[in-house]
Amino acid sequence: VASFGPKDNLALGRAMREVREQSGTSQETIALKADLHRNYYSDVERGNRNITHITLLKIAKALNVKASELLAQAGQ
Amino acid sequence: VASFGPKDNLALGRAMREVREQSGTSQETIALKADLHRNYYSDVERGNRNITHITLLKIAKALNVKASELLAQAGQ
Repeated sequence: VASFGPKDNLALGRAMREVREQSGTSQETIALKADLHRNYYSDVERGNRNITHITLLKIAKALNVKASELLAQAGQ
Repeated sequence: VASFGPKDNLALGRAMREVREQSGTSQETIALKADLHRNYYSDVERGNRNITHITLLKIAKALNVKASELLAQAGQ
């Protein structure tokens, strides 16, 4: 199987950041909506976390997009 | 935020199962390709695991689909 790792987490984090910035929303607001600590959410956007499926769904909901859309935007 | 949990893991697992069965491939083959234990992969299809982003990418690759396609098929 191909090797997956931090670069793939980063691609997803960048997609989240793009969506968030286009909506003019802060990291703190998204973190609050997704029930995550703001530092944790910041780490996610920077590709420093390998989030679970459920966390992905929570963040997508907070960003008002489908999880599938975030992954597609990340090329995944 | 909406409540996410086992039902959402199950929806994703069912999408994986559908894709796998349509390709006529065994759980063992997919597990091997994705570098996962066959029992673990079986649990994933049954919605008993909350997999990470990287594991999702590995399974999608083994199934020859995009991770975004699996999530879309799960309505996510």
